Formats: sequence, C-alpha cells, structure tokens
Amino acid sequence: MEVKTLKDLVRFDPEKKQKIAVFDSPQMYYDLYTLMPGQLQKPFVFKKADKIIYLLEGKLQVTIAGETATLEPGQAVRVPAGAVNSMKNEGPENVVALVVVAPHPECAERKKRREQAEMG
Amino acid sequence: MEVKTLKDLVRFDPEKKQKIAVFDSPQMYYDLYTLMPGQLQKPFVFKKADKIIYLLEGKLQVTIAGETATLEPGQAVRVPAGAVNSMKNEGPENVVALVVVAPHPECAERKKRREQAEMG
Repeated sequence: MEVKTLKDLVRFDPEKKQKIAVFDSPQMYYDLYTLMPGQLQKPFVFKKADKIIYLLEGKLQVTIAGETATLEPGQAVRVPAGAVNSMKNEGPENVVALVVVAPHPECAERKKRREQAEMG
Repeated sequence: MEVKTLKDLVRFDPEKKQKIAVFDSPQMYYDLYTLMPGQLQKPFVFKKADKIIYLLEGKLQVTIAGETATLEPGQAVRVPAGAVNSMKNEGPENVVALVVVAPHPECAERKKRREQAEMG
C-alpha cells in the first residue's frame, strides 16, 4: 500500500515552480505544485482533461478563461477542459497546492489519436 | 469560476458516512467523505478507476487488497483500479477526507459497454 505524507515531498526551487508527482497513476496526475514568491505557471490548456487545484499553503492567484481569483488555504477551484489557465504566487509566502488532472493527459491524447484514426 | 471552500461543505450524519461532491466534473469524482466515529465504507471496488484518498481531519483506517493502514491528516493513499477497499473511522475524532476517483466511474462504465459492443 502506497501511503504518502505530502509535506515530506515538498521542495522548492528558486529557479522555477516545481511539479512533484505524489502517485504514479495511469488514470490521473496527482501532483504537488510549489511556487516561491513571484513564481508562476504560464497560460496553459488541457484540451480533454479537467484540472482541480486545492490550495494547501500560501496564497495563489489563479486565472481561468480570463477571470482571476486568489485562493486561500482550504479552497479549491476547477479548471474545465479547454479553459486557458495560469497561476502566480504574488507572495510573500511560499505556495503548496494539490493539483489533480484527469483523465491522465497522455491517455486522453492517445484516445484522441485513436478516435482520429477511426474517423480517418 | 467555481471557487469552493471545502470546510464550508462539511456535514456529518449520525446515520451514515457522507459523500459530498465538491465539483461536478465529467472527468472525475472530487468528493469529501465524512465519517463519524464508528462509521465505515464497506468493501468496494472500482474496476476501471483509480481512487486517491487524502486525509484532512481525524484518523482513518483504510484496507486495500487485504492490507490495512491508518492515515493521519496530510497523508494520502492510492487505491488502484480493481483493488477491493474499505475504510473505517475507529474514532474518537470525526474524519474528513478528500477522495478523487478518475476517470469518472460512469464514463468508464460507458466506455466499457462501448468496447464490449465493438467486440461483440
């Protein structure tokens, strides 16, 4: 049985945001994101997968489809598939967030290619 | 943008464990489970979906494929697709857990039926 203590996995890098896999699941990403003050994730989109961000520590500014909110610890937000999203730590504290993406983006990509092959 | 404060959603029922949807995602279940002392989830299996349990409050006894562990707050465990699993709050505190299941079990079920139809 794979029991993980999330805080033991936390690490920060002054160079850039860290994405730390908690579990290696074939069905989803289940990751910790860590951002030091000023660090960010640039605008990004998963075409087929939903992403849910749950904030554990710090304050995190999230922009989804042009709308911006600042998450507090204990708050979560859903990024629907297809929505452009970005995040930034406006500081002063470090940020730790639990980020789930499903279905696993690589699986969605394989499924898309298979569907295109079937249609083509 | 759907920002949710998870603790505002928490409720307990002396009759049985509660399963509280945080988001209505087509891609996954993203739920709070709440268990008062003595409450449990009976052995259960998702054939196609992974489940990840992250404990927020209390102590939770989890059994996966015959192996048992007690989670503390901040710990998480993965239940691979196909593994029989159950949980119990041995008390004395209330339990709040964040439970993610992906892909969405109903989608997996539809996919399975489609695959069976294609093979049949």
